[in-house]
Amino acid sequence: MNAIQYVIKAVAANSSIPILQGIHIQAGADGVTFTASNTSMTIQSMIAQDGFSLTVKRKGAIVIPSRYFHDIIRKFNDDKVILEIKEPMILSIVSGHSQLRLCGMDPTEFPSIDDGEAFPSTKLRISTSLLRSTIKQLAIVASTSETSPILTGVSLECSNDCLNLIATDGVRLAYRALHLEDATHNILNAVIPAKNLYELSKILNKTDDTTEIEVSNNRVKFVTTGLKVESALIEGTFPFIKNVIPQSYLCEIAVDTACLLKAVECVTVMASEQVIRLVANADTLKLLSKTADVGDIQNEIPLLEMCGEEFVVSLNGKFFIDILRNMDCASVRLRYSGKTSPIVVLPDDSLMSTLFLITPVMTR
Amino acid sequence: MNAIQYVIKAVAANSSIPILQGIHIQAGADGVTFTASNTSMTIQSMIAQDGFSLTVKRKGAIVIPSRYFHDIIRKFNDDKVILEIKEPMILSIVSGHSQLRLCGMDPTEFPSIDDGEAFPSTKLRISTSLLRSTIKQLAIVASTSETSPILTGVSLECSNDCLNLIATDGVRLAYRALHLEDATHNILNAVIPAKNLYELSKILNKTDDTTEIEVSNNRVKFVTTGLKVESALIEGTFPFIKNVIPQSYLCEIAVDTACLLKAVECVTVMASEQVIRLVANADTLKLLSKTADVGDIQNEIPLLEMCGEEFVVSLNGKFFIDILRNMDCASVRLRYSGKTSPIVVLPDDSLMSTLFLITPVMTR
Repeated sequence: MNAIQYVIKAVAANSSIPILQGIHIQAGADGVTFTASNTSMTIQSMIAQDGFSLTVKRKGAIVIPSRYFHDIIRKFNDDKVILEIKEPMILSIVSGHSQLRLCGMDPTEFPSIDDGEAFPSTKLRISTSLLRSTIKQLAIVASTSETSPILTGVSLECSNDCLNLIATDGVRLAYRALHLEDATHNILNAVIPAKNLYELSKILNKTDDTTEIEVSNNRVKFVTTGLKVESALIEGTFPFIKNVIPQSYLCEIAVDTACLLKAVECVTVMASEQVIRLVANADTLKLLSKTADVGDIQNEIPLLEMCGEEFVVSLNGKFFIDILRNMDCASVRLRYSGKTSPIVVLPDDSLMSTLFLITPVMTR
Repeated sequence: MNAIQYVIKAVAANSSIPILQGIHIQAGADGVTFTASNTSMTIQSMIAQDGFSLTVKRKGAIVIPSRYFHDIIRKFNDDKVILEIKEPMILSIVSGHSQLRLCGMDPTEFPSIDDGEAFPSTKLRISTSLLRSTIKQLAIVASTSETSPILTGVSLECSNDCLNLIATDGVRLAYRALHLEDATHNILNAVIPAKNLYELSKILNKTDDTTEIEVSNNRVKFVTTGLKVESALIEGTFPFIKNVIPQSYLCEIAVDTACLLKAVECVTVMASEQVIRLVANADTLKLLSKTADVGDIQNEIPLLEMCGEEFVVSLNGKFFIDILRNMDCASVRLRYSGKTSPIVVLPDDSLMSTLFLITPVMTR
């Protein structure tokens, strides 16, 4: 059931190619692989033959309709399941007193995940839990609009022992630098669809395993214990963003993250077009919003630190919430650099490897 | 938050009458009532003034926009909340460091739940948990199609110390007789919208409280601790169903409820147009289904008892699941009375107060 639930996220449910609506099952000497694929992403989940949770009696492969397979295996819940190809292209499933026959499709017609193996590629290793939290922080900031396809991706840029990840939708920007233990000699430059990364983050184990990332010319493959995820890359050049990050600031404040998140969530409820206003005074940050004919709200949270001049800025509360929810640091720093400059949001740790920008909303 | 979540189910969110999109709040000597109403149902929830969870400082009433109120109170979660009318038609809400002002509407324009108080009515008392489980069994069987409005209701029929409830959508039928502790002298005949009863069942406390049911000419009111729910009645005459229930049978079988439910759920996954086939043999009940070009399934469960001849019947698996899921008895009896007669499903207890019918599907 786990294996099926992992791969089903890549099934092309509405594809005009019938075989992509299926799950490819392959029983081999090592165990069984389940694979699903759409034009953008392939997910493969493996159950190892350990003589206990899985035994392979005979090798074979078939592609079967994903929805029926998923629904029926779910109904069997705790019971043991026997999968067998008795007649050509028919999978027999026996569990308890249930006997099922599912019509399958030719497994040789299914796209293989290992196609790109021979291509020259760059390999990186990274902690799975770090990759997972990084993806969550970045994928939410990527654009969801297809008007600028390159911005629907997360940019990976790598040189020596540093992996830089960037996502932006034009209003927000997220940047994170990860230290690599094994320096790479290749220069890497790839843009991965954010929605594929988001699916990946949901199925990555929470264990402190490492994940191998293998980038070739037109695809990227993530490999961890029992799981392979392959994604197409987005063609094009990711915008150069170094110039967008303000290099100096007029004011910096530090606030408790949970406290700020709660306040922003509160005032955003009453915000017309999600616009909230921040007012940084001597020792408090005031948050305000209103909707005409409905009402208004204000909320105050204490500042942990402030250096520089008082400021007032309006921004999109929903966008701010997205950033704060994925912040894994007890306090955050906000930097104000003037009315038209983006607000810089930094986790308040000593690493300084993560940075968010959020562009103010101009109000009358 | 609980009080708001109860009443919000009755808010007419898309009503063209703005005041029905609101929640009526009234602070009185006894406590605070929250009321929401649509044209079909009114829900009123009360928080008693106990000096601990609620204190009324000053009496007053207002109607405020339900969505904003619900969303903002949810954000405050654990904190204490102060509601105050400082300016006319404006509700001020203070919680922690948040201050909110919500524009309200005139409370005198809100429909009152007590309008019908003066009308002659019939009163019944019934155990809340019994009412709850009865509604769940019956409401799911009622029709959802407006082509025959009377069948979207559950019929209540009462004489002496017996309350009969009936629901049917033309294919299924559910009947339950409840014993009343206080015999009533009035004859009661009312049809209540099943969807209102279903909402009621979701908010009825699970405690072993009793609920008072008060039926007048055109409405019914359910009253239990802290809660009043009023529903309109459906006009018309509920079909006479006594003739539909087979009085004799060719075969009766008894099976384990959980075992049967699991088997029906399994085979329904593979059922074309949800049609499954039951085959009762000497000591097993076989369940089968198939979908052309996809596959087939069969499942077998042991019979606990069988008397009469073997039979084969096809029926709608989804409808059968609905009935079995709300069966609160360890085993069930199925009675077969011939190819064209409905199957009778009975909880296998000594009470014989509940009965379901399900009409077979004719197959080639």
